[in-house]
Amino acid sequence: MIGRLNHVAIAVADLDAAERQYGDLLGGILSAREDLPEHGVTTVFVRLSNTNIELLHPLGMDSPIAKFLEKSPSGGLHHVCYEVEDIRAAMERLVAGGARVLGREPKIGAHGKPVIFLHPKDFSGTLVELEQA
Amino acid sequence: MIGRLNHVAIAVADLDAAERQYGDLLGGILSAREDLPEHGVTTVFVRLSNTNIELLHPLGMDSPIAKFLEKSPSGGLHHVCYEVEDIRAAMERLVAGGARVLGREPKIGAHGKPVIFLHPKDFSGTLVELEQA
Repeated sequence: MIGRLNHVAIAVADLDAAERQYGDLLGGILSAREDLPEHGVTTVFVRLSNTNIELLHPLGMDSPIAKFLEKSPSGGLHHVCYEVEDIRAAMERLVAGGARVLGREPKIGAHGKPVIFLHPKDFSGTLVELEQA
Repeated sequence: MIGRLNHVAIAVADLDAAERQYGDLLGGILSAREDLPEHGVTTVFVRLSNTNIELLHPLGMDSPIAKFLEKSPSGGLHHVCYEVEDIRAAMERLVAGGARVLGREPKIGAHGKPVIFLHPKDFSGTLVELEQA
């Protein structure tokens, strides 16, 4: 079912510092910053040849990554996103297999495509996003 | 400097459960289990079309992921590994830029290639592995 690894998301407390780390130190190619107020994040992508790293920084008062940064103040690996062909078929398969999907319906994710998130407790402690490619 | 994302490593407390999650539920293609006693882990790879997920389970009394699982008992995202062309050149660039490399010399990693690990505090809380491709 899962296809490509679309991205790995890393929550960062200091976006300037993260840009230096991934740009200057590791020599990665960085996208421009993008504010996504409806998702509560500012994003920067590190463009790798086979996939992307998404740096996530909280934006606004109700950011979904604020709690993560409370627990891990400097940041850390937040989630992985796999591509699927059909998000509803994926959802049905997962629910039939006993996995918990967060929310009842796919949402439009930060990249304008339908996404679902799966409960970390059902995936060995890892937050998994599925995106319809 | 950094090239492909070689793998994302996920520490798991229950390898049977993780194989069900990534194989049966998510429909990923799994490698056979491999015990690497000299690295203190048993590994299973989830083969994606563009990269790999490495499931890491502790092996023996002195596993490097035992502490991680003490803090996060069900497991979680452990590290990301980027490919570089020249591990020593990468090390020099990083040290010159003020980043801490764990250990003084590259080691031979779990895949038989020279690797270094970078201090999570210098990379926004993320443990970074570099592997000479």
